[in-house]
Amino acid sequence: MDRNLSQLEDIFHPRSISIIGASTREGSFGRMFLQGLIRMGFPKVYPVHPRDKEMLGLPAYQNIKDIPYDVDLAVLMTSPRDTLNIVKDCAEKGMKGIIIFTAGFGEKGADGKEIEQEIASTARQQGIRVIGPNSLGIYCPSSKLTTLAQGLMHDITDESGVVGAFSHSGSFVDYLTYILTRKGIRFSKAVSCGNECDLSAVDFLEYFGQDKETKILISYLEGIKQGKKFFDLAREISKEKPIIIWKGGMTEPGAKAALSHTGSLAGSKQIWEAMFKQAGIISVSSFEEIVDCLYVFYSLPLPRGKRIAVVSAMGGTNVGTTDNCIEAGLEMAKLSNLTIEELTKLLPPVGTSIGNPADISVATLVAPDLYGETLKILDRDENVDMLLAITDPGRACTQSIADAAKTINKPLAVTLFALPELESAEYEFLAQQNIPVLPDAKRAVFALSKIAEYARYQKG
Amino acid sequence: MDRNLSQLEDIFHPRSISIIGASTREGSFGRMFLQGLIRMGFPKVYPVHPRDKEMLGLPAYQNIKDIPYDVDLAVLMTSPRDTLNIVKDCAEKGMKGIIIFTAGFGEKGADGKEIEQEIASTARQQGIRVIGPNSLGIYCPSSKLTTLAQGLMHDITDESGVVGAFSHSGSFVDYLTYILTRKGIRFSKAVSCGNECDLSAVDFLEYFGQDKETKILISYLEGIKQGKKFFDLAREISKEKPIIIWKGGMTEPGAKAALSHTGSLAGSKQIWEAMFKQAGIISVSSFEEIVDCLYVFYSLPLPRGKRIAVVSAMGGTNVGTTDNCIEAGLEMAKLSNLTIEELTKLLPPVGTSIGNPADISVATLVAPDLYGETLKILDRDENVDMLLAITDPGRACTQSIADAAKTINKPLAVTLFALPELESAEYEFLAQQNIPVLPDAKRAVFALSKIAEYARYQKG
Repeated sequence: MDRNLSQLEDIFHPRSISIIGASTREGSFGRMFLQGLIRMGFPKVYPVHPRDKEMLGLPAYQNIKDIPYDVDLAVLMTSPRDTLNIVKDCAEKGMKGIIIFTAGFGEKGADGKEIEQEIASTARQQGIRVIGPNSLGIYCPSSKLTTLAQGLMHDITDESGVVGAFSHSGSFVDYLTYILTRKGIRFSKAVSCGNECDLSAVDFLEYFGQDKETKILISYLEGIKQGKKFFDLAREISKEKPIIIWKGGMTEPGAKAALSHTGSLAGSKQIWEAMFKQAGIISVSSFEEIVDCLYVFYSLPLPRGKRIAVVSAMGGTNVGTTDNCIEAGLEMAKLSNLTIEELTKLLPPVGTSIGNPADISVATLVAPDLYGETLKILDRDENVDMLLAITDPGRACTQSIADAAKTINKPLAVTLFALPELESAEYEFLAQQNIPVLPDAKRAVFALSKIAEYARYQKG
Repeated sequence: MDRNLSQLEDIFHPRSISIIGASTREGSFGRMFLQGLIRMGFPKVYPVHPRDKEMLGLPAYQNIKDIPYDVDLAVLMTSPRDTLNIVKDCAEKGMKGIIIFTAGFGEKGADGKEIEQEIASTARQQGIRVIGPNSLGIYCPSSKLTTLAQGLMHDITDESGVVGAFSHSGSFVDYLTYILTRKGIRFSKAVSCGNECDLSAVDFLEYFGQDKETKILISYLEGIKQGKKFFDLAREISKEKPIIIWKGGMTEPGAKAALSHTGSLAGSKQIWEAMFKQAGIISVSSFEEIVDCLYVFYSLPLPRGKRIAVVSAMGGTNVGTTDNCIEAGLEMAKLSNLTIEELTKLLPPVGTSIGNPADISVATLVAPDLYGETLKILDRDENVDMLLAITDPGRACTQSIADAAKTINKPLAVTLFALPELESAEYEFLAQQNIPVLPDAKRAVFALSKIAEYARYQKG
């Protein structure tokens, strides 16, 4: 691991943290950070405050230089005009990293950008790396550390997982980690890149590419600095790890909004899309799409091809979903004669439709096992690369699918027709069996088309 | 109301129903229908069974002709080969309508189509109208009547509302009514058209167009019989009532699937899309899209134009959502100078972005009222036609939005970042204030673009 990467390792795994701008005032960010780190159980927290000697039970210090211990990481939430001086203090103290939460720099104009440059060069001269300004910081469960707002305010797991997230939007990565950890997804690390006066998306991309813990990368991005390096790295990393990106600022008004958000300019959509495709990046355009794709990539093996088989008891949904498959670039698998024979034996002659899509009819109301049995037959068909089952969330049907899934080798996604009172229980039940559940068949098809596309890229 | 329509009135409001093929066997459809009608409280139910004299507490009859009372509607679930004879019996009995649940006719080939024709002509000669075969029947809350499977198996409300639904897929209309009634939407009537040997989608379109109770039409369709009549009717009805249609079989494989589903052929996508557009029909392509659009049309007034203002505390989501707006054909409203002044006074100077989208920043964590105040300012701006607020589902934020909504005149939709444990409570809270909540901003933008498009059609 080169210097850049070992510096990032240090930032994700600090032994001690100083909160500069800590507060005990109810409703202040300074209190939120302090309280959150204590709640999560991070061991060494040193609040810095101009007057207080003790904060929420911890000794507080007037200045960073007064802290009588080594400090690996500082989180700054003081006013913009004090930031540069505090960075100088941090440098003298010999820290490894600084997260600048404070906003009001580059995104506000040229003056702000100039200060950012000074901050970065001051830090770098002393071998310190900076995340931000305008950053919500990082989440690293294995370090029992989060500086992301939702994680600070509520409980967030310290179990590690395979998803690495980096984002130009702090709230994006904040909500993403908060919501998805509650749904069973586990992260290796997550980072809000902020204005990138020093460390930028390209550094985190490189880090996650090499990080042994991280197997899937997800990201919300606006402008990308060092575009060539970013795409060269992505092209290599994609060969082993999927990279799912929601790129904001694809339209002119979107790019204008990005300018006032992180101060970055964005290029044209056509160029981005072409570059994403060449680099094997999975491109999405909303929070839900990124989550849907993540579920599918998180739970499923890669398909061998793009030939899908669709099963449901709902004839109309089958027809509409077939349209969705074709429009997403998938192919409806042509079932083998053996499959047709086996399905003909299995399914009632009336009300069903033997083929792809397979309509297993309202007979499933009284014979829910038809779901699992049909899926097992389709799984054995050499012409089928992946499976989608659309069902109502009665336990009998989901149980039948979950049982069948134990012997199914091909990627299988499920769409449940969501009844509010059953939804979460059935989703959880299937998620525990590692079956991704997408609430709408069109969304399932979208995510499956993305994993098929990615599998093709990986094959080269 | 002409004869056709008064005949449909009779079918939706029968005074008595005979279930031909009723059963007491656990897990049979015959039992499901019988039990469901009794549970829902439909007053006069006459089961017909070859041997049983009593079924679930009701007197049973060997033949329809043995029933000593007038029977308005028959539901048939006997085998296909008996169907024609039973229809003849029904005709002799002087019924008004027959729902044929039995499948295995037109969708199985030419022979089946021929029997369907015989059934239809036999019935019509006696002035009886037929729904089906291969139909799940109807839901008419004001008659305390449902023959749809989910409604029969579970409780479904008998409160009436403004949504009329007709569908070539029984399961579609079944799930739609079942799920949405649980979420607070109320239906006037819903019908599963089945194979349309007699009554078809065009009849139900015409009926709902004239029905005083129905204000919004939704439909899943495959092939459309009497296409010219359908679109002529739709063009007129759309001027007063929105018609939301999910058309299955838009692609060749989808059309092939439709052929084995309802036996209908479907035309090319380009032709359908063009005809939908000319007729002011709102075209969607999944279950979720139809539900999202329904929520928006159900809850919101029509916008004056397509200029949207977006508000959130999430800068990145704002940027990405701006892209979604542009790509869906909306315009980002250009805020007036007064609005900019008022927002500048209201919002903190740092971390926010004054403009459209308006980024009201993490400051909302400590000052949630910024949501409501910002929305009220944007609502007053003459350049803004509709509003989208994207928020986390903390009650403080949703309360602020709900309070503001009381004085807001323009269409306002909300996207909540869904935390599993808060989701339903906050959705329900906002839904009760008649604020449609869409779980993803891209979906909200899609539905808002459809209501803007429809408003333009209505203006002519």
